[in-house]
Amino acid sequence: MFKEILQRIVEQSNGVGAVLMGYDGIAVEQVLTDNQTVDSHLIAVEYANVLKELKKAASIMNAGDVEEVSINTGKFFVVLRLLTPEYFVALTLNKGGNLGKAKYLVLRETPTLQAELA
Amino acid sequence: MFKEILQRIVEQSNGVGAVLMGYDGIAVEQVLTDNQTVDSHLIAVEYANVLKELKKAASIMNAGDVEEVSINTGKFFVVLRLLTPEYFVALTLNKGGNLGKAKYLVLRETPTLQAELA
Repeated sequence: MFKEILQRIVEQSNGVGAVLMGYDGIAVEQVLTDNQTVDSHLIAVEYANVLKELKKAASIMNAGDVEEVSINTGKFFVVLRLLTPEYFVALTLNKGGNLGKAKYLVLRETPTLQAELA
Repeated sequence: MFKEILQRIVEQSNGVGAVLMGYDGIAVEQVLTDNQTVDSHLIAVEYANVLKELKKAASIMNAGDVEEVSINTGKFFVVLRLLTPEYFVALTLNKGGNLGKAKYLVLRETPTLQAELA
């Protein structure tokens, strides 16, 4: 189920956490490593807002559907991958993490997550 | 000036276009290759909205400042790099383009763009 898939992504990427969530900002499932002081509900809502803007932007630009977004902040790498019109997965890494591997792992688990969501 | 820098980024990355713009959605300068049917003003406004949401998200998540965002759509790769609290640069590539090289080129020109903006 979702928890095992997210756990696998987080472990193999040395990630901080992974969340499967809807565009309504409600997390379906999440895995967070220890020592996380972040408010995951707030994060969910914020990610969802960012992706809603992105989907709107891509549609206006006639750019095809948004498939993946990587965000590089002062502290984290975040990989967002869109799974269905309602759900997406977000993986957060510490700045020293391997972004390429993280993107690969998320992509590899995408069909499994999509099958579970279907 | 800005035009030469953007031109260099677009040429060396084989990009579709590059824009230097403010968060108010107004483009300071832009370079578009031929055959572009996109409405660059609409794009500017949409990019700016996405980045505003991202900055808010990063602040709420206590994730440090947003530095760079890559977006992968059905047709394009887009690299957004934040230059100052008011301005950012956006480079768009066709899907077959080299995203790694594009990110490198944008990063390489960042100090030059920042110096021009100061």
